[in-house]
Amino acid sequence: MSGGPASVNQLAQPLLQGLLRDAGRLRVSATHDDAGVQLLDAGIAATGGVEAGLRIAELCMGGLGEVRLAAAPHEGWPDWLQVRSSQPVLACLASQYAGWSLAASKEETGGKKFFALGSGPARALACKEPLFEELGYRDTSEHGVLVLEVDRPPPPVVVAKVLRDCALAASGLAIVLTPTASLAGTTQVVARVLEVALHRAHQLGFHLPDIIEGSGCAPLPAPGADMLQAMARTNDAILYGGQVHLTVSGDADAARALALALPAENSRDHGRSFGELFEQAGYDFYKLDGALFAPAEVWVSHLGSGKTWHAGRLHMELLRQWWQAA
Amino acid sequence: MSGGPASVNQLAQPLLQGLLRDAGRLRVSATHDDAGVQLLDAGIAATGGVEAGLRIAELCMGGLGEVRLAAAPHEGWPDWLQVRSSQPVLACLASQYAGWSLAASKEETGGKKFFALGSGPARALACKEPLFEELGYRDTSEHGVLVLEVDRPPPPVVVAKVLRDCALAASGLAIVLTPTASLAGTTQVVARVLEVALHRAHQLGFHLPDIIEGSGCAPLPAPGADMLQAMARTNDAILYGGQVHLTVSGDADAARALALALPAENSRDHGRSFGELFEQAGYDFYKLDGALFAPAEVWVSHLGSGKTWHAGRLHMELLRQWWQAA
Amino acid sequence: MSGGPASVNQLAQPLLQGLLRDAGRLRVSATHDDAGVQLLDAGIAATGGVEAGLRIAELCMGGLGEVRLAAAPHEGWPDWLQVRSSQPVLACLASQYAGWSLAASKEETGGKKFFALGSGPARALACKEPLFEELGYRDTSEHGVLVLEVDRPPPPVVVAKVLRDCALAASGLAIVLTPTASLAGTTQVVARVLEVALHRAHQLGFHLPDIIEGSGCAPLPAPGADMLQAMARTNDAILYGGQVHLTVSGDADAARALALALPAENSRDHGRSFGELFEQAGYDFYKLDGALFAPAEVWVSHLGSGKTWHAGRLHMELLRQWWQAA
Repeated sequence: MSGGPASVNQLAQPLLQGLLRDAGRLRVSATHDDAGVQLLDAGIAATGGVEAGLRIAELCMGGLGEVRLAAAPHEGWPDWLQVRSSQPVLACLASQYAGWSLAASKEETGGKKFFALGSGPARALACKEPLFEELGYRDTSEHGVLVLEVDRPPPPVVVAKVLRDCALAASGLAIVLTPTASLAGTTQVVARVLEVALHRAHQLGFHLPDIIEGSGCAPLPAPGADMLQAMARTNDAILYGGQVHLTVSGDADAARALALALPAENSRDHGRSFGELFEQAGYDFYKLDGALFAPAEVWVSHLGSGKTWHAGRLHMELLRQWWQAA
Repeated sequence: MSGGPASVNQLAQPLLQGLLRDAGRLRVSATHDDAGVQLLDAGIAATGGVEAGLRIAELCMGGLGEVRLAAAPHEGWPDWLQVRSSQPVLACLASQYAGWSLAASKEETGGKKFFALGSGPARALACKEPLFEELGYRDTSEHGVLVLEVDRPPPPVVVAKVLRDCALAASGLAIVLTPTASLAGTTQVVARVLEVALHRAHQLGFHLPDIIEGSGCAPLPAPGADMLQAMARTNDAILYGGQVHLTVSGDADAARALALALPAENSRDHGRSFGELFEQAGYDFYKLDGALFAPAEVWVSHLGSGKTWHAGRLHMELLRQWWQAA
Repeated sequence: MSGGPASVNQLAQPLLQGLLRDAGRLRVSATHDDAGVQLLDAGIAATGGVEAGLRIAELCMGGLGEVRLAAAPHEGWPDWLQVRSSQPVLACLASQYAGWSLAASKEETGGKKFFALGSGPARALACKEPLFEELGYRDTSEHGVLVLEVDRPPPPVVVAKVLRDCALAASGLAIVLTPTASLAGTTQVVARVLEVALHRAHQLGFHLPDIIEGSGCAPLPAPGADMLQAMARTNDAILYGGQVHLTVSGDADAARALALALPAENSRDHGRSFGELFEQAGYDFYKLDGALFAPAEVWVSHLGSGKTWHAGRLHMELLRQWWQAA
C-alpha cells in the first residue's frame, strides 16, 4: 500500500504516453513549443476524434477515473458516455474541474488577449485555487498535464506562468488542446458529468471528504457548429441528460438533502437550453443560475444507513428536439 | 495452444499484483500476518470501494471472467454489474463459488469461534469439496488466492489449515477480506450473478461440462447498514434483478428444461425479500428454499439446435421499493 | 505523431499474440500448416467461444476498432455487441470487410473445390480489390492476418496465393478460421454491424474519406444450427437489430441523404428473414437487394453544421420471433 494520496500527475503519465504513441491514428498532432513544452492538438488544426476525447477525459481525471463510450442507443440517442471513479473528489475536483483561470492581456501576448480555464492534473501542482486548501491536496511531480478548451495554443506568457506556478521544467509539461466544438473537445466536456455533480455538491456545502464513490452517464451530442453551440450542447447533455450516482458517508440527513437539492430541475431556469440562457445573460456565465449546473437525475446512497435517495429525471425529449434535425 | 486446463491461481496472479500495486488509491490495506501470508483488507478497517470490488470479483473468478460496472441507469436503478465468461464452469464453480467451509472453535482460536465460506481460486488447490470431483478439476500452483466475506481476519489456526490443504508456503498465499456490508464486498457478491445460475443448474442436475458460455447482469445496491441487510440486498439483487444467459451443448431437451426450471420465480418463496425469509427461517440458511437462489430472468441457448429459451422476468419494482428511501 | 496512416497488420500483431497466448482458455487450436503458416481454429475442430470471437473481431478491424459484449438485456434479448472506431473507413473497409475472393477449383485442390471471402488486415497487403484504389490505402508489413469464415482449412494452393499476393513469408502469415455456425464465428460476423453501414454508404456513393467516426450495436444471436441458419441470423441481427451512428464531414446535404437512404427499411425485401429471401433467390447472394444489407436504425451527425439526422428503427419483435423457441 502506497503511503499518502495518489499523485494525479504521475498516474496521468502512462495515459499521456499512450496518447503520444497512438497520436497518428487518434488524429492528434503532437509538437513542442519553442521552450520545449509538449503540445497535443486534438481539434484545432488536427481532426482528433471520440477516442482521443475519451483518453483525454481519463487523463484529465488524473488516472483516477474511467470513461467509456457505450454504443448502446436508448431514449432515442445513439452514444452515451459512462464515467466512474472510486476517488471522485480527487479525480473530479482536484484534477478534472476547469477551475484555473489563465489570462493574458494584449500587452502580455503582443497580440490578441487570451483566456482559458485550465483543467487536468497540473492544477494540483499549482494549487492557485482556494478549492485546494479545502481539499487538503497538493500534488508533487516532475511531470504535469494541463488540458485547455481553446481554439489556439496558449501564448508563451501563459505557458511560462504555468511552468512557474507548477514548478515544472519545460520538458516536464504537456498541454492538451481541445476546442469545445471538436469531437475530442465535446467528448471530454460531456465526460465531466460526474464532476458537475461534485462541483454542485460543493456549492451546496456538502462535506467533500464524505463523497466516497461516484458514477455517471450522459448522452454524447454531435459537436456544435461553433463554440457557442458546442458549449450549449455539452452543458445541456449534462443538465438534461446527465445521471449521477454518489455514494457518501457522514450524516444521513446531509445525504438526503444533497439528493433533493442536486438535480438541475431545482433551478429557476430549468427547461431552457444553455444557449438561450447564455445569450439572454449577455454571454456572462456568472449571471446564470448556479443551480442549473447539475445532472438531470441523481441517486445518493449513504454508507451506514444503507439508504439511497433518488431525485430528478431525464429530459431527453428536450435534447432530441434541440439536437436532431429533420 | 497450452496443454491442459487453465490454472485459476496462476491467472489470478497478475490481478493480485495489480490490486497490491494500486492498493492506496483503491483504499485497500495490504499487510502480512505473522506467518508471512499476504492479507488484503478491502472493507474492515480499510474503506475499499467499488473498483476494489470489481477487481476482487475478477480475481475470485480466477482470471477467467470479466466484471464491469455499467453506469447506465435503467429500470430506475443507476449502477449495474455485467459479468461474462467463456469458461463459466471453471470461473464460477471451481473458483468463485463460496463453497469451502472454514471453521474454528473457541478452543482452536483461543477467542471467538470463526466461520467463513472461502471462495476464489485457492479452493481449487485444496479441493476439499465434493464438487471438484464432479468438475474433474484440480489446480496446482505455488501461489493461491482466497477470498473471505468476513469482518475480521481469519485466526492463525484457519490460515494454517488453508496453507496445509492448499500445500502452499505462507509466502504463496494471499487472503482478500471483504465484509458483505462494505462497498467492495457488496460489489463482489452481486458479481456472483452468473455463479448463482451455474450453482442452481448444478442443483437441478444439469450436466456441467455442457455449459460453454455465460453472461449476466444485476443491479448494484448500496451496501446494507449491517451484515444482515447487506446479505439481503446482495441476494435480492440476483433473485429479483439478475439476468443470465447460458449457452450449452448436449441435449436440447435438457437445455429447454434448464431454462424453464432456472428462474427464481420457480420458488415457493418468490416475491419476498431474502431478509424477511432469512429471519423467518431463524437465520438458518439451509431451511430456505434452494430454488429461490437463482437469477430472476434467464435465457438458455443450445448449440446444435440453435434454439434459445427464455423464462422469468425482472422484478425491479420490488428492489426499488426495498432499496430506495423517501 | 507517426507519419502516414496506421498499419492495420502491425496494429493487429499484439492482438494476434494475445490470441495465441490465451488459446487454451479461449478454446482456440493453434497449429502450423506444412509451409509454416500459423493456423488458428476457432470453431472447426476447436470449440472456440464468444471471447475468442470478440478478439478475432478486433483483430479483423486491424486494431483500429473496439468490440465489446454488453451483458445488458433489453428489448427482450440478453447479449449485445458494441463496436466503435475513430478510424472506421480503415478499420471496416480496408480491413474487416469480407471482400477478397479466394477460390480454387477441384483440379487445383485435388479434392473439393474451395471458396471463401477473405477478411482482415491481410487484404490491405494484397490489395486485390478495386476498393483499395478508392481508399488510397496500401499496407506494408512483414506480418499479416487473414480471417476466413470457413468450416475447413484453406487448401495449400489458396494459402500459396495469399502468401504471394501479400508478399509474405509463410512464417509471417496467420489465418484465423471461424465457421459462421460457431460461437466465435457468429460473434465476429455480428461485430460487422458498423462495417455493413460503411459498405452500404459506399454503395450509395457517399464520399468515404468524409466518414470520421462510427459506432454501432447489434444483438448477438445463438449460432445457427447449420451454416444457412447461422448466415440468416448474423445478417438478420444487423438488418433488424443493428443500430449505427456515423459522424461525417463534407457536404451537409450528403449527410442528410445518407441518413435517409441508409436503413434496411429502404429495401423492397425489408421485413422478411435473410434465410427466407436467400432460399427464394436460389442461394444466389447477388440476386438479393443490396439495400437490405444495412443497419435497422441509423444516426448521421455532420461536423460543421452540427446536425444529426435519424432514420429507421429496431425490429426486435421479428428477431425475438425468429430466434426464440417455445
